[in-house]
Amino acid sequence: MEIKAYLNEQRQIVEDAFQTYMLEAKGEFAFHIESMRYSLFVGGKRVRPILCLAAAQAISPDSTMKTKVLPVCCALECIHTYSLIHDDLPAMDDDNLRRGKPTNHVVYGEAAAILAGDGLLTLAFDLLSSSYADKLEPQQRLQIISIIAKAAGSPGMVGGQALDIASEGKNIDFETLKTIHRCKTGALITAAILAGAVAADANDTQYQALEQYGKAVGLAFQIVDDLLDVESTTEELGKEAGSDVKNNKATYPSIFGVKQTKKMANEAVEEALFSLTHFDEKADPLRELAKYIVTRKK
Amino acid sequence: MEIKAYLNEQRQIVEDAFQTYMLEAKGEFAFHIESMRYSLFVGGKRVRPILCLAAAQAISPDSTMKTKVLPVCCALECIHTYSLIHDDLPAMDDDNLRRGKPTNHVVYGEAAAILAGDGLLTLAFDLLSSSYADKLEPQQRLQIISIIAKAAGSPGMVGGQALDIASEGKNIDFETLKTIHRCKTGALITAAILAGAVAADANDTQYQALEQYGKAVGLAFQIVDDLLDVESTTEELGKEAGSDVKNNKATYPSIFGVKQTKKMANEAVEEALFSLTHFDEKADPLRELAKYIVTRKK
Repeated sequence: MEIKAYLNEQRQIVEDAFQTYMLEAKGEFAFHIESMRYSLFVGGKRVRPILCLAAAQAISPDSTMKTKVLPVCCALECIHTYSLIHDDLPAMDDDNLRRGKPTNHVVYGEAAAILAGDGLLTLAFDLLSSSYADKLEPQQRLQIISIIAKAAGSPGMVGGQALDIASEGKNIDFETLKTIHRCKTGALITAAILAGAVAADANDTQYQALEQYGKAVGLAFQIVDDLLDVESTTEELGKEAGSDVKNNKATYPSIFGVKQTKKMANEAVEEALFSLTHFDEKADPLRELAKYIVTRKK
Repeated sequence: MEIKAYLNEQRQIVEDAFQTYMLEAKGEFAFHIESMRYSLFVGGKRVRPILCLAAAQAISPDSTMKTKVLPVCCALECIHTYSLIHDDLPAMDDDNLRRGKPTNHVVYGEAAAILAGDGLLTLAFDLLSSSYADKLEPQQRLQIISIIAKAAGSPGMVGGQALDIASEGKNIDFETLKTIHRCKTGALITAAILAGAVAADANDTQYQALEQYGKAVGLAFQIVDDLLDVESTTEELGKEAGSDVKNNKATYPSIFGVKQTKKMANEAVEEALFSLTHFDEKADPLRELAKYIVTRKK
C-alpha cells in the first residue's frame, strides 16, 4: 500500500465526518464556534482518528465499521485539538505558531482560546453520547467513553501536561520523562487504538495486542516529536522549532543525543510491528502507520 | 421540613461520595490532583448535586436511588467546579477570591489552574462511564452523559461564558442577558434536575414538569446571584463583591433596578413551584430548594 495516498484518503473521510458533526459558526455563539472551528480545521494530520479507524478495520473491515467508528474518530480529534489550544496558551508553553498558523489565543484572545478548548473537550463527550454514535451498542459506547476519559484526563494527558509544566527548567530523570511522554501523548494515541478495538468487538487477545501496539506507537510518536523539535526549521515544523530548548524542557535528544534517540524510535516501531504478528493483511494500514510515524517530517 | 438541616444532610452525602470517587493527591501527579481537590473541597454549597438527588427522589425515593444517582451528582459538581476555576482566571473574570478563599490560580498558578479545570471536566465523564455508575442502565447513562455534555458545552455553559466575556463593557440588550444567564448558569442546573429525572425513570409528563422546574430555578438562581453581587459585602459573598460592576457587566439589577429584580426572582420561584403541581409530597425538597434559592445569602 502507498501510505501517502492512504493517509490522504483517510484524512478526507475524517474531514467529511466533521462537516456533519461540527457546529456551524452562526447564531449568538458564532464567535466562540468560529474559534473552535479555526483550530479544528487549521490542517491537522488526523493521526488519532486514522489510527482508530485502522484499528477497527484491522479486525472488521466491512463498510459499516466506518460509520460506526467515525463519531469516535472525531471525538478523539476534538480532544487532541483542545489539548493543543490549551498547551499553546501564554500560561502554558506560550507558543505563537501551530501547524504554520497563529495559535488560537493569538487570533481570538486568551479567554476565547480557553473556552474553545473547553468547548471541544465537552463536544467530544457530546458526540460519543449523541445519536451520531448510536450504531454502536450502549455498552461499547460507555466502554469507549471510559477509555477516552481516562486517557484524556488526570491519569493521562492532563496529568502528563501538568507534570511537563512542573518539570520545566528542572533536571528530571528518565523515569519522569517517560511518564510525561506516556501520559501526555501516549495515552490518547493508545486510547484511539483501543476505542477502535472496542468498536470492532475485539477479543481479549486482539485487544491486548492492539494495546501493546498503541503504547509502542505512542512512544515512537513522542520520541520523533522531540527529534523534530531539535532538527527542523520553524517553516518545516509549522510551530516554533526549538521551543522545547527555549522552555528548557527535558527531551529524548537532550538526554540521549540525536543518534541514540533515532535508534530508540526505530525500536519502538519494531515493537509495534511485532505486536501485530498474529494479525493478517487487514492490519497492514496499522503496520504502515507505525513506519510512517518515524519517517514523518512534521 | 427544615431546609437548613436538609441541606446539611444532603451536602454530607455528596461529600462522602466524593471521598470514594475522588483521586488522592499522591504519586507523580500529586500537585495536579491537589489543585483539583483544593477547589472541589473549598466549601461549595453542592446545589447541583442536591437538586439532582432531590429530582430523582421526587419520583423514586427508595434508598437504592441514592446509590444510583450519586456518581451523577459528583460529576455535576466536578463540572461546576471546573467552570469556576476557568471563569476566575486572569484572562477571564480575573477574580482573586472565591468562597472566601484565594482562587485556584492564585494558589497554584495559571497553568495548573487551567489543567485543574481540564482535569475536573474530564473526570466528570470518567465518573459517568465508570463502574461507580453501573447501577444505572447503559441507556440511562448515555442519556445522562448527553444531557450533561450539551448543558456544559458550547450550546450551554461554555457558550454562555463566551458570550458573557464578549459582552463585557458593551451595552447588551435584555435578550442577550437572558441568553447568557440561560446558558451560563441555567443549563447546568436544568441538566442536574433532568439527569436526576432520567436516573429515576421519569415518564414524559414528569420529565417535562421537571424541565420547567429546572429552567425556572436556574433563572431564579442567576437573578439572585446578580442581586448578591450588588448587595453583599465581600466577606458575606466569599468572592469579590461588586465584581460585575468592576467588569462593567450587564446584570438584572443594572437593567431593571434592585426592586424589580427581586420581583422577577420571586416570579421565577412561583413558576418553579407551579411546575410541580402534579407531584406529591416527595417533591417537597424540590419546593423548599426553590424557595431557598431566593432567600440565600451567598
